[in-house]
Amino acid sequence: MEPATFVLFGATGDLAKRKIYPALFQLFVDQKLPPSFSLIGLGRRGLSHESFQANVEQSLITFSRSEVKDADVMKKFLRAFRYHVLDIDRKEDYTKLLRLVEERENELNITPNRMFYLSVGPEFFETIAANIHESGLDSANGWKRLVIEKPFGHDLSSARQLNTKLNQAFNETEIYRIDHYLGKPMVQQIGHLLHSALSEQEYRTRKIASVQITANEVLGVEERAGYYDHAGAIRDMFQNHMLQLLMMLTIELPNRSSVEEVGKLKRNVMKALKPLNKTDVTHHIIRGQYGAGEIQGEQVVGYTDEPGIELGSHNDTFIAARLQINDPFWKDTPIYIRTGKRLKEKATRIVIEFNSEGPLKDLLIIEIGPNERIFFQRSQSGMENSDVEIPIRSQHSFMKEVVKDAYEILIHDALIGDKTYFAHWDEVELSWEWVQPILDAYRENLLPLHIYPAGTYGPSESDKLLEIDGFHWWFDAKNVSINDATKGESFEAQKAELIEL
Amino acid sequence: MEPATFVLFGATGDLAKRKIYPALFQLFVDQKLPPSFSLIGLGRRGLSHESFQANVEQSLITFSRSEVKDADVMKKFLRAFRYHVLDIDRKEDYTKLLRLVEERENELNITPNRMFYLSVGPEFFETIAANIHESGLDSANGWKRLVIEKPFGHDLSSARQLNTKLNQAFNETEIYRIDHYLGKPMVQQIGHLLHSALSEQEYRTRKIASVQITANEVLGVEERAGYYDHAGAIRDMFQNHMLQLLMMLTIELPNRSSVEEVGKLKRNVMKALKPLNKTDVTHHIIRGQYGAGEIQGEQVVGYTDEPGIELGSHNDTFIAARLQINDPFWKDTPIYIRTGKRLKEKATRIVIEFNSEGPLKDLLIIEIGPNERIFFQRSQSGMENSDVEIPIRSQHSFMKEVVKDAYEILIHDALIGDKTYFAHWDEVELSWEWVQPILDAYRENLLPLHIYPAGTYGPSESDKLLEIDGFHWWFDAKNVSINDATKGESFEAQKAELIEL
Repeated sequence: MEPATFVLFGATGDLAKRKIYPALFQLFVDQKLPPSFSLIGLGRRGLSHESFQANVEQSLITFSRSEVKDADVMKKFLRAFRYHVLDIDRKEDYTKLLRLVEERENELNITPNRMFYLSVGPEFFETIAANIHESGLDSANGWKRLVIEKPFGHDLSSARQLNTKLNQAFNETEIYRIDHYLGKPMVQQIGHLLHSALSEQEYRTRKIASVQITANEVLGVEERAGYYDHAGAIRDMFQNHMLQLLMMLTIELPNRSSVEEVGKLKRNVMKALKPLNKTDVTHHIIRGQYGAGEIQGEQVVGYTDEPGIELGSHNDTFIAARLQINDPFWKDTPIYIRTGKRLKEKATRIVIEFNSEGPLKDLLIIEIGPNERIFFQRSQSGMENSDVEIPIRSQHSFMKEVVKDAYEILIHDALIGDKTYFAHWDEVELSWEWVQPILDAYRENLLPLHIYPAGTYGPSESDKLLEIDGFHWWFDAKNVSINDATKGESFEAQKAELIEL
Repeated sequence: MEPATFVLFGATGDLAKRKIYPALFQLFVDQKLPPSFSLIGLGRRGLSHESFQANVEQSLITFSRSEVKDADVMKKFLRAFRYHVLDIDRKEDYTKLLRLVEERENELNITPNRMFYLSVGPEFFETIAANIHESGLDSANGWKRLVIEKPFGHDLSSARQLNTKLNQAFNETEIYRIDHYLGKPMVQQIGHLLHSALSEQEYRTRKIASVQITANEVLGVEERAGYYDHAGAIRDMFQNHMLQLLMMLTIELPNRSSVEEVGKLKRNVMKALKPLNKTDVTHHIIRGQYGAGEIQGEQVVGYTDEPGIELGSHNDTFIAARLQINDPFWKDTPIYIRTGKRLKEKATRIVIEFNSEGPLKDLLIIEIGPNERIFFQRSQSGMENSDVEIPIRSQHSFMKEVVKDAYEILIHDALIGDKTYFAHWDEVELSWEWVQPILDAYRENLLPLHIYPAGTYGPSESDKLLEIDGFHWWFDAKNVSINDATKGESFEAQKAELIEL
């Protein structure tokens, strides 16, 4: 593993304290950081190196998944940390930053490999990339990488524009776009899992009747009103996470696939997706917004009454979609996707329904969250309980992976230069292309916004979307839940998770 | 009452939907709006008049304190509402706004009296005032008034600078600075209440030993991290609400006082406050920040672990202060003020302790929130219960006032041109002057930041502040609460209240 300098923009922010530092610390404990490693945190506030280190330590005590036991280990870890005050718009600050980076590289006698991690609002991406370039921070004699978080653009044209700007400083192989769903071991494996499940004797010759991809949340908009009210479920979840889940599920990865192969297979899925146009969107897309209702026995307000949400906002907090992949394997299989807030149950789940003659349906259920699990079920309403667990290849090592946070996996991949589980530009562009007619339809008021009571499974129109094809959403009965085990999870715990932007 | 046009900046925002529209609607129902009334709502988003009216109606259904029963009344109320899209920086938009205002004034045949209500972030105050002036919106042949919300400046110099800018368009008599504490009937009356209580036979000759002013909250930073982390308890509560409470308590208003008299008396209090300097601040000010703890049986995180709070933030969420008023009546009476978040009990309360020989103390307790009440108590630890209710002059009409929301009272006052219960510039300036040495001490790290567990009454240093004078905070015992009746108030209800910025 090559030595590297980790230049972190937004070093005093939420993501840094909750995700990035704990991930780096875990990698350090697991001896997966470069032997010579330097981190330079950047923020607006003046802060000494020592205060910065003390603050990072405090955040690790709270957020690290391993208990912090050994004071020496912690000390050694923090020794790599420096702080530099930086105003994103001030070019002089980058010049000073360059001097500090070089000073540390000389001290540690390491190659100038530099990873720039932008843990800041998307409105700063272009400016930072340009200033990195102009200051010469990117021109050293080693590799350079840019790590950015979602959202990547607000629509197709803004995403393209942002990419063009970033490309003036970093080329595509140097840009690592984090979609934290791709950092989950279960998601990285779903293509394999599906195909190994399908090769089970009983299912070899059966056809897949439908696929349902669900990402339901119980929480409402919480602390993120300002962002969410201009994004909605479609930009916050659908365009990125949900379409990435679809891609990962429907590609069959050969063992040890190269990043190029994965990229190509995902692109092929997106290109095979039957495009919508804004006038037929109503037949394929259901848009919803939560009203007042009851969540786990507590009365909650409707979306437009939430603090920070605009009066009469028409933003969506729920989206359901019917998609079709025009390729030989999937062409007869409708794919349903839904995601929303203030729903009855928290669950990220894929349900594969097989063709059958009788009333009992055979289902393959892939639970991605809150707990990972994959199993067959023969079911009429979701209530029957003849589960057959599927042997996951190398169960033991898989379960070892599952406890890892997505950020551990993704930051490690970025450090070793493996872009496999990042969102590549082609995928991002194709996703926006597919989504754009929906955004156009929203803007021109061609798509109704259905209000659903908080604590339900979304608007009834979401059910009708499946009914006309002869299907229904699985596990939506009022009195049954696949996730009883997770009911006890506190709102606080759920909120903490939500911070993964 | 003169006809007027209410020009509302931020018409799709939180304060508008939760406070301003409900207050206006209540005034309309009570026939306290001008007979000819026109409201023009301004926002970034394009919106038809009809959609705007429908959105306002929706917010009234949720937030109005009177049930909306009569559809005709509602219809008539909403008929006064128009919407205009406005980019705060675009001068052309103000010119268009002027045309709409005039058009409506002509339609309704009303004098061009115009009230500009800035329900927007403080960073926009200067620009809006300047653009109102340049566009000629303020130059009609009637009165003009500017209503603004806190915060008024960030420190002494920024407050002065803001005032100078506003004065280029509006003079002091035209500026209405809302401090919603001053809109509470109980606060408007506390000077009277205190003096009428003191004239009770038993207390006529007794001396006041100390005064305690408490504003404790149970909630944490909630959805306001971005604002609060740069304000803290000192700017969010102390400089404005707490010092206003102090002024209102310590002035004795003659009946039917003029706004000039009130202003003068309040100024005198502030001028008589013994000034601090940044080096002796430690003896008078205690600064705290909540750590993790337990609130009403639930585990809650510490301040720096809250979403949106900067890593290692040194912001205060608690402040306690000892003050002294150098005038003949108060000079021997220490005044203690405290306010904070994530404390054990929600209460806004003033406790007057009288001199006594024995262990039993006589207290006059003025409860301002959550419920209004004033009574004497003879007490050792706060547990004795020999309450004597004090007849409030004209109890009946007072209690009728008490149900009103502060915004009803203040918006009505602004419409009739009564500035008595608004924060006048002199008070604001004198408050910042008194507070400035504390801000300087913060910045230069002269004042420690004490961490207190959530669910307590703040850092123990706050107790010591009183102990050295031979006093203690009343009603802090773990097993006693004056507010048992309010324990049932849900967090949601408390949050809704918090939105009063």
